[in-house]
Parts: sequence; structure tokens; C-alpha cells
Amino acid sequence: VPVIKPQVAFFERCGSAGVAALEAVLAEARDAGLLVIADAKRGDIGSTVEAYARAWLDPGSPLRADAVTAAPYLGLGALQPMVDLAGAGGRGVIVVARSSNPEGRSLQQARTDDGRGPAVEDMLLAGIAELNTSGRIPTGTVGAVIGATLGPSRFRLADLGGVILAPGVGAQGGTAAGVGALFGECPRGTVLASSSRSLLTTGPEVHALAEAARKARDEMAGVLS
Amino acid sequence: VPVIKPQVAFFERCGSAGVAALEAVLAEARDAGLLVIADAKRGDIGSTVEAYARAWLDPGSPLRADAVTAAPYLGLGALQPMVDLAGAGGRGVIVVARSSNPEGRSLQQARTDDGRGPAVEDMLLAGIAELNTSGRIPTGTVGAVIGATLGPSRFRLADLGGVILAPGVGAQGGTAAGVGALFGECPRGTVLASSSRSLLTTGPEVHALAEAARKARDEMAGVLS
Repeated sequence: VPVIKPQVAFFERCGSAGVAALEAVLAEARDAGLLVIADAKRGDIGSTVEAYARAWLDPGSPLRADAVTAAPYLGLGALQPMVDLAGAGGRGVIVVARSSNPEGRSLQQARTDDGRGPAVEDMLLAGIAELNTSGRIPTGTVGAVIGATLGPSRFRLADLGGVILAPGVGAQGGTAAGVGALFGECPRGTVLASSSRSLLTTGPEVHALAEAARKARDEMAGVLS
Repeated sequence: VPVIKPQVAFFERCGSAGVAALEAVLAEARDAGLLVIADAKRGDIGSTVEAYARAWLDPGSPLRADAVTAAPYLGLGALQPMVDLAGAGGRGVIVVARSSNPEGRSLQQARTDDGRGPAVEDMLLAGIAELNTSGRIPTGTVGAVIGATLGPSRFRLADLGGVILAPGVGAQGGTAAGVGALFGECPRGTVLASSSRSLLTTGPEVHALAEAARKARDEMAGVLS
């Protein structure tokens, strides 16, 4: 099934009119049978994160998607209302864990437990794996965003139990070989290596776009078992 | 000047109709001369964080506010487009640094530099202070969210150079005495200790609400020089 990942910021940029346009895109995507990941990177605590969960994952919301991306600065545990709603509805939450931008590394590689514990990113990935095997939600409910341009992960990614969204292929420098090295052991079909700008720049001619997308897909299929 | 802090999630919960309602609230608040902090906790990288910045801080956006809250999991540096736009327009970015919810402490207290450096929260607070004294943006452009229920901060909060938004007073357990202990040395007028639920539960009768708000304000004025 093809997956699309609308970037919510570019709709929000235009206020309620932009959000209405996003609702129309989401409705068309559902009608076309596409899977949709709303790239919103939302996060908060308590009733606030629950409201975000309802916005993006409630079956009655005009903004409902199959999955939403979440940001964990307030802790993975603070995202629990989002995880619960996703699990109850067969949807997903994809938590940003390891980002490839250089400004994020010192925070994400900081060591928990007063410097003696695992890195923040590895603690989050282990927490995600734990949620996926907890039995309280369907396995695969919680995924992770892991940049495609990074070095090896200390956490064994094949054990995550959920989808890996791997941005950064193409314009941001990620290659099929790099994706294979990082994610080659992950279960088939669980790694979504996404190219955005490198594909879009082959448009707007539809044939060229489709050709570039097919080529990117085949390259990825070659490196992901 | 009174400050209001609409919680964006509760509007987004209702899709584009909710966002349109928020636009109306923001317009009324501007007309009434209130300062508005949009509590959105947005964050991303590159052109995406720039789009969020334009949504909340561009003078032409229907969602423009005086300041917006931001989440730093992708690094303080990744928020630079938001900081730049805020600085250019005399607006503000308030970065979540120390949250009082227990699920966030292990991440925010993780130690940078392979366990030998400052905690994540202290690195961010120092980075905010550096931005405020950099001369590239007006001092006070960047503030921090610091929970009102926490113990002492290792970073000297009086040196932040920007506003401190301190949620957690009232229903979440924060008291005026606690606020005084944490923030008493901060410059006058820079600490916004906010009560939401504890005030709202005194409504909907307007007189009782106003009375409770006045009482809360006077208590805070007593502990913040």
C-alpha cells in the first residue's frame, strides 16, 4: 500500500484555511486507499496531549490519519494517551527518536541516569519496544523516526516491534546503501525510507515523478530484505 | 498587561473549524490589547520549522500571536528560524526546558557530552541565555517554560534574559511560596506563573473568576520582587 506523509506545518502556515485544505487531502487519500502519516510532531502532557491524540487519531476527527508523528521532549510516558488511542483504533504513533540534523545530536545522545545510563535516544527506542510487546496495545502501534543518514544505532533496531520512518534519503544525503546498512536487519516492510525534495524536484511532470518514485522504491527494495 | 495563553491542542482537536475559532479568539485578544502566548509546543527542522514560525509569528498570519511555545527535541539550534522571525518582529519564542511532569525528568536531566557535560535542560537554558545576549536578536526574544513545582535549577535563572513561563500553579500543586523559591531572583515582570484549572473551576460566574484571578496575581506579586 502506498504511504503519504503530509507535512502539517505547511498547511498550518495558512491558518484555518490551510487546515481545511489538509482535511480535503486526507479525505482524498482515504478514498484512494492510501495510508497516511500526518507529520505533525505533536507532544504535550495530560489532557493536552489527549486533545492532540483526538485531533489526529480519533475516527470522528476531520484530521484523522493512520498514524501521527510525535515529539518526546516531555517524556515517552507523557505520550501515553496518544499511544492508547492509537492502539484502540488500530492506528499508530511514530515517535521522533534519532534525528539526523546535527543540532539534535547532543540532546539525543545525552546519557540518562546522571550520565551512567543509556542515551536518551536508546532509552526512547527501548521504551517503544516495551510498549509494542506490553500486550496492552497491538504490536506495531508505536514506531520511531530515525534519520537515514546516521551511523549505527546502539539499540538493536530489529527489536523495535514497530514501523521505522527514515527521512533524509535523497536531498538530505541519505543513500540506499546507507539505509541498508542501518536498517537491513529490520523485518520486511517495517522501514519507510522517505524521499521528499529529491522526488518533488523531478516534477511537476507526472510521468517523470512516477518514474523517480519507482526507481527510489526499487533501490530501497534492494537493500531492505 | 494581561497575558492569555490559549492551548492550541483544544482548538486543533476540532480540525479546521477549531482553528478558525482560535483565529477569532486571537483577533479579539489583539483588539482588547492582551498579550497572547500560543501554547503550541511546535518544533521541527529546516523549512518545516520555518513554516511553523510563519504560522504563529508572521505579522500576516491569521494565527499570529505575541509569542509561541516550542519543543526542543530536535535541538535548540533547529529552532533558529523561529527565533529569527520572532526577533525580527519583536515577538517571542518560549522553549520548553524543564517540565514538571515526572515522565520528562530522565530525558531532561540526562547529561550531555557522553555523561560528563551539563544536563539537557541546563544546556538548553544556557543556549537560550546566549541567544538573548548574542546581539543578533533583541534581548528577551527567547524565553523558557519551567515547571513551577520543581526543585532548584542548576542554571541560574536570573541570567536567562527572557521570560519564564511557569505552569503548574494551583491544580498541579505549585504554590506561591514554591514560585518565590524558584524564581525569586528573576528580574521583575519576567516570570509568568500560570494557573489554569484552579482558576477555571471558580467559574463560570465572572465575578468569582475575576476575584480568584486577582487573588492569584497578588499572591505572585508578593513572592516575585
